Amino acid sequence: MNVPAVLRLELSASRDSSYDIVLEPNLRHKLAKYIPETTVALISDNHVDQFYGDEVARTLEQAGKTVHRHVVAAGEASKSLETYGNLLRVLIRDGIDRRSAVIALGGGVVGDLAGFVAASVLRGVAFYQCPTSLLAMVDSSIGGKTGINIPEGKNLLGAFWQPNAVLVDVEVLRTLPEKTFREGAVELFKHGLLADEGLADAFRNPRFAPDGGSEYWLEQLPRAMQVKADIVSQDETERGVRAYLNLGHTLGHALEAHSHAYAGAGNVPLSHGEAVGYGLLFMAKLAAQRGYKDETTRVLEFLAWLKPKPLHDNLTVDNFHVLQGYLQKDKKVSAQKIRWVLLEHIGSPVLVDDVQETELESAWRYLLNYAQGIYV
Amino acid sequence: MNVPAVLRLELSASRDSSYDIVLEPNLRHKLAKYIPETTVALISDNHVDQFYGDEVARTLEQAGKTVHRHVVAAGEASKSLETYGNLLRVLIRDGIDRRSAVIALGGGVVGDLAGFVAASVLRGVAFYQCPTSLLAMVDSSIGGKTGINIPEGKNLLGAFWQPNAVLVDVEVLRTLPEKTFREGAVELFKHGLLADEGLADAFRNPRFAPDGGSEYWLEQLPRAMQVKADIVSQDETERGVRAYLNLGHTLGHALEAHSHAYAGAGNVPLSHGEAVGYGLLFMAKLAAQRGYKDETTRVLEFLAWLKPKPLHDNLTVDNFHVLQGYLQKDKKVSAQKIRWVLLEHIGSPVLVDDVQETELESAWRYLLNYAQGIYV
Repeated sequence: MNVPAVLRLELSASRDSSYDIVLEPNLRHKLAKYIPETTVALISDNHVDQFYGDEVARTLEQAGKTVHRHVVAAGEASKSLETYGNLLRVLIRDGIDRRSAVIALGGGVVGDLAGFVAASVLRGVAFYQCPTSLLAMVDSSIGGKTGINIPEGKNLLGAFWQPNAVLVDVEVLRTLPEKTFREGAVELFKHGLLADEGLADAFRNPRFAPDGGSEYWLEQLPRAMQVKADIVSQDETERGVRAYLNLGHTLGHALEAHSHAYAGAGNVPLSHGEAVGYGLLFMAKLAAQRGYKDETTRVLEFLAWLKPKPLHDNLTVDNFHVLQGYLQKDKKVSAQKIRWVLLEHIGSPVLVDDVQETELESAWRYLLNYAQGIYV
Repeated sequence: MNVPAVLRLELSASRDSSYDIVLEPNLRHKLAKYIPETTVALISDNHVDQFYGDEVARTLEQAGKTVHRHVVAAGEASKSLETYGNLLRVLIRDGIDRRSAVIALGGGVVGDLAGFVAASVLRGVAFYQCPTSLLAMVDSSIGGKTGINIPEGKNLLGAFWQPNAVLVDVEVLRTLPEKTFREGAVELFKHGLLADEGLADAFRNPRFAPDGGSEYWLEQLPRAMQVKADIVSQDETERGVRAYLNLGHTLGHALEAHSHAYAGAGNVPLSHGEAVGYGLLFMAKLAAQRGYKDETTRVLEFLAWLKPKPLHDNLTVDNFHVLQGYLQKDKKVSAQKIRWVLLEHIGSPVLVDDVQETELESAWRYLLNYAQGIYV
């Protein structure tokens, strides 16, 4: 299949603001046709760079562009004020000007970091997302959220800065480590729950894997990206429906933060995806308790596929309060009130701000019983 | 006069984006009525804070708001990545959330710094400009340019982030040092040249001074702010007519940078305003040489009022090339071509990108002869 799939994202908040999401096999060899700028800063991490850095730089140079390549260390630690400041300074020394572009070639970390650089260098230059992980493809590359971490917390600093285009080469999924793939699978599953039941069942297909092939992924990816694009296009700066994307994330963030704070002595920190997986089960139970359609079975089946690491052994059925501090710190908390995203049924999320302590404790007991192996 | 003057700035680039510029004597005691947010970070510098910090904090607290006060050192050095990072972290530790607001109480440095903090903390919160210098009132507080400096240059990092309102207490001009007042006077004169001949003659009035009084300033300030607001409203992100605001600044920036680079041995660096003053004379001569209306006399008279420090003694009538490197570094240079803003006549600026070396050298000789005292 050589015909690219193109989704167009129209942002209702801004005039004349729309951009294309292009999916195409081997797009990394044809990037220049979507990037008119003649001077580009190509930002990647050392993992992705070793696979694709040379190819992408060569493609752009062969189209006559001046390419300044910068490689950061793979991993969340690169989303720091220090790396950000260093990148900005080196881009200026390269001679970047307002007609230049920044290209993010990598996963979520590279996209978030390079995006904030693009948003703020010279008060903003053109920006292209070339996501190489499943997570970046279906989630973080779409919607313009950019940001870095500070010691006080993750993504507390950044900008909404929409890319000029999202350019996806589905072939690069082949080199994605299984562990990294599963991180993206959780967000894809979540998008399915929010808007597309078939997508929520994608994990059951044996081709749902890094080597699933271009044909398979050219069907699945646009569906997942469409869910994100539809929500973002209605709410560019997270004042309303964009909060639906936090499905499973409120408890997930708390579990993730807790698992890092208490790591050690046999307790390995949860990945973001694992924590959100647990968060989705918690959400499903909260929803079922309210009489909404019960999706706990589907989430349990997804978790059987995901196989998350165990929860920390200091979490027990009767100590939900241990997580309360982490819930309060979540930056989506406004005016001290926690808004939970629940599903009335697949495709119909709602924001609920009157969840009672007893409801939370009941869903928590269910989650802990599951995690301790009673239901599996 | 107790009726506030209100200008409304409508930004054509964004839907639903407009904000008020409110001018009122003693507005610092009534700020709360324009700021609905209940938690605010009040950012000022140590000079302004000693005059007005307590009054403003008390006004806001008496209206029931939680006020977190942060004071940075007065001066350009506070527009650094380090001060920026420290402010962000302390705001997070204060517990700022997305419904909080950042208030800049001060001149251009505080406005630029606090504005970039507001633009990027939690990906953007509400922002209020309370300018206390003439420069900040007529220029930097309007239009949403925020930013900080890096060792490679000034304002190379930042965001376009429009304030929710610009709140001007004209009374505070009384405490403005004469030197600081003159910096703002240059931009006010420039705004006059761009759009309002009466404003360009304001410097001739004896009341054109920090103690000119509320009545006088409530007439002059809205005129100067209207010029800026009109231009910005047509061009939020400096793609077109906003470049007119660089009148006098292209050479001005180069002179300023050069004077800092070669300071010492009896040569005192030029202030920004002094450098722009010289830049305006250079511009007037370039324009006159092209057959546009000759405004050199008016600029000479303004310079006689401004009394800028002498140019560096390594600048001579025949070494314009010394400044070339500084001109090229200017971030308004796009694709290596310098665009000069010239006046066809007062109220009618044009962008010109075909200025020849011989024209520049001729205007330079004129400027140097003037600066060396031949024409004064």
